[in-house]
Amino acid sequence: MTRNLPVKADRIAADIDALAAITEPDKPWTRRAFTPMFLKGRDYLIRRFKEAGLETRIDAAGNLVGVRKGKGYENGGAKGTIMLGSHSDTVPNGGRFDGIAGVVTALEVARAFDEAGIELEHDLEITDFLAEEVSIFGVSCIGSRGMLGLRPVEWLERQADGMTLAEGIRLVGGDPAVAGGRDDIRAFLELHIEQGPVLENRNIDIGVVTAIAGISRFEITVEGRADHAGTTPMGSRRDALTSASRLVLGVERIASELSLGPTHFAATVGEFSMEPNAANVVPSHVRMLIDARAEDPAVMETFGEAVGALCIQTAAKSGVTIPPPRRISNNPATPMAQAVVALLEESAAAIGASSRRMVSGAGHDAAFLAKVAPAAMVFIPCRDGRSHAPEEWAENDDIALGAAVLYETVLKLDQQ
Amino acid sequence: MTRNLPVKADRIAADIDALAAITEPDKPWTRRAFTPMFLKGRDYLIRRFKEAGLETRIDAAGNLVGVRKGKGYENGGAKGTIMLGSHSDTVPNGGRFDGIAGVVTALEVARAFDEAGIELEHDLEITDFLAEEVSIFGVSCIGSRGMLGLRPVEWLERQADGMTLAEGIRLVGGDPAVAGGRDDIRAFLELHIEQGPVLENRNIDIGVVTAIAGISRFEITVEGRADHAGTTPMGSRRDALTSASRLVLGVERIASELSLGPTHFAATVGEFSMEPNAANVVPSHVRMLIDARAEDPAVMETFGEAVGALCIQTAAKSGVTIPPPRRISNNPATPMAQAVVALLEESAAAIGASSRRMVSGAGHDAAFLAKVAPAAMVFIPCRDGRSHAPEEWAENDDIALGAAVLYETVLKLDQQ
Repeated sequence: MTRNLPVKADRIAADIDALAAITEPDKPWTRRAFTPMFLKGRDYLIRRFKEAGLETRIDAAGNLVGVRKGKGYENGGAKGTIMLGSHSDTVPNGGRFDGIAGVVTALEVARAFDEAGIELEHDLEITDFLAEEVSIFGVSCIGSRGMLGLRPVEWLERQADGMTLAEGIRLVGGDPAVAGGRDDIRAFLELHIEQGPVLENRNIDIGVVTAIAGISRFEITVEGRADHAGTTPMGSRRDALTSASRLVLGVERIASELSLGPTHFAATVGEFSMEPNAANVVPSHVRMLIDARAEDPAVMETFGEAVGALCIQTAAKSGVTIPPPRRISNNPATPMAQAVVALLEESAAAIGASSRRMVSGAGHDAAFLAKVAPAAMVFIPCRDGRSHAPEEWAENDDIALGAAVLYETVLKLDQQ
Repeated sequence: MTRNLPVKADRIAADIDALAAITEPDKPWTRRAFTPMFLKGRDYLIRRFKEAGLETRIDAAGNLVGVRKGKGYENGGAKGTIMLGSHSDTVPNGGRFDGIAGVVTALEVARAFDEAGIELEHDLEITDFLAEEVSIFGVSCIGSRGMLGLRPVEWLERQADGMTLAEGIRLVGGDPAVAGGRDDIRAFLELHIEQGPVLENRNIDIGVVTAIAGISRFEITVEGRADHAGTTPMGSRRDALTSASRLVLGVERIASELSLGPTHFAATVGEFSMEPNAANVVPSHVRMLIDARAEDPAVMETFGEAVGALCIQTAAKSGVTIPPPRRISNNPATPMAQAVVALLEESAAAIGASSRRMVSGAGHDAAFLAKVAPAAMVFIPCRDGRSHAPEEWAENDDIALGAAVLYETVLKLDQQ
């Protein structure tokens, strides 16, 4: 691809390669929040933020922020902030692009404005949010929640690796005692790899995210009876595993049907374990956890009801006991700001990039920013839809094209 | 039930109750081989053996044996041994009757001959085999194998609880350095609870075992792909769990069909685990272990072939990889001696007990004794077919009826 973009693809590539080199050596690409490797990555970013002329600091929530001051004033004060960002932490063994592509492109946009001699009306804030991935403390989006005053107080007492989360936040340079809250953010944009195969399969440059799917988790247990595997006739068994297998296939069938509807839906049995798990004993107990993602809350309800009915039918057929599914979490979908979505589409078209509206099945910091400001996301293709795995890959030209969409969109937002 | 039996039901009940009281207090009924509780049970049995006038000792293989000398001679020596026995060790949390019922009834038969003033031609040997259950050393039937010279030499080096099996055998009073081998056994009988529901459901007093089923274990792995559970469309997945669920149900279907044939067959997926087993990741890997029991080796082969075909079909449909099942063990079925089977049936009829021929789906010490002598087993009903569980239960009158069958059969064997 040879396009005349306002951003520099080679500079993006250099930053992404430099950060990829900052990994636990035996398990690329690993830079988990609160670890020495994470702090090494932050040191690199801080140096690059400062080289780009940004006013650079760690905020109280532990986020790295770099500000390019705007010239505009209104009501006797600054005009407010347009924020770009994502995260530099990774899951274990995965994250060569997941997160960091959004930080590096945001930084590149700031550099590109400098090179173009453009002064914005608004402050432009580049943010590396702390611990977007499920961290050692077992929770996610710690930085974006903290920045906005949405971090549960009790989280600070969570323990991992011999420290509390409060100590972890201090370790990265934050101050857990300071309550979050921002009223200056006028818009938020986040670039991220798609983490799915849609853009690649359809050969589309840019995904414009219209919503971040809601996530519900359902726990199901199956109670059968532990019998001797050699002596119990096939017809006399209450085998928890065979009933659980019917549930797994039922969940797949229900989810596949719902996924054909007009809105995004997916469901996965991601956790599955059984007891006694002994070769010569008929399985007596299975626990499984369903992860369900829905753009439309009504579809999530339909799914929950269908799974409940499936449990009743399966139990009735097989003599096992299956209590009603327990919904252990229920986070609703977050719509993106339609006005910002439209600007992203216009920007893509302006630089000759194809785009498509889509829903993010994964959670992102943008879901929290959307609570306080108009927010939207730019997805770029990734190979085979892989993420959270060593094979995760995105082409640098695709990333640069996404950065150019950010650049154009910030210009438009700045005029509003 | 009020029958005039040659054995004393109340004496059997007293011994079974006394041994039930010798259990790990927090998990009845547990008396695992090589533990202090096992040795306490042995102490009780040794006392009772001696009270019954038996020549009592621990043999080199660690079995407790008590001999009632016979009067008969042939070829200038003793006429040989009729052996009765089972085992006093248990699995964790199960074994109120499994094993011990066979030891206690054997002892009662010896006492009953004394009371009746009957001198046998043959020596009568009552045996409590060491470690019939899978012990802390991970292997089973240690005592019966050892007695007959069938214990693999390398087993002696197995480690558990800070000792080797050789040390464990010394702990119980045996001598692992002595090679086993017996040429004096003329017949072997073992009474055992059925561990299945057939006798209870059909209201039959006595099961006469015609064969101990063969056991094969098949390991199957399913290789899918770990993808993000939220972002990977339902149609783009290589979900190892859904494919594995199809295998589980396929195995159940194949096994159920084969179990309707003329010979005993059962198969169970007893072990099942998956990776990464994380809520938000599509499962990438499943390992399962099938335990299959067949009276007829040809049926076992049919099963193995059908499961192999199932794997090919399932992989073809779903995009996962399923290598051919790996047969990790293959122990053929052991037929019981038809002449002894016929004597057991005659004996049951003689005391007015109903009987039925059946196959043991479980392994027993009798399978090893059958290699050196005519052997057969007597099954008695147990409640709900339960065993290896705290709920395991057999009615004492049923046990006593089984003991009477042993008594009558020994008399017949002694005349041969």
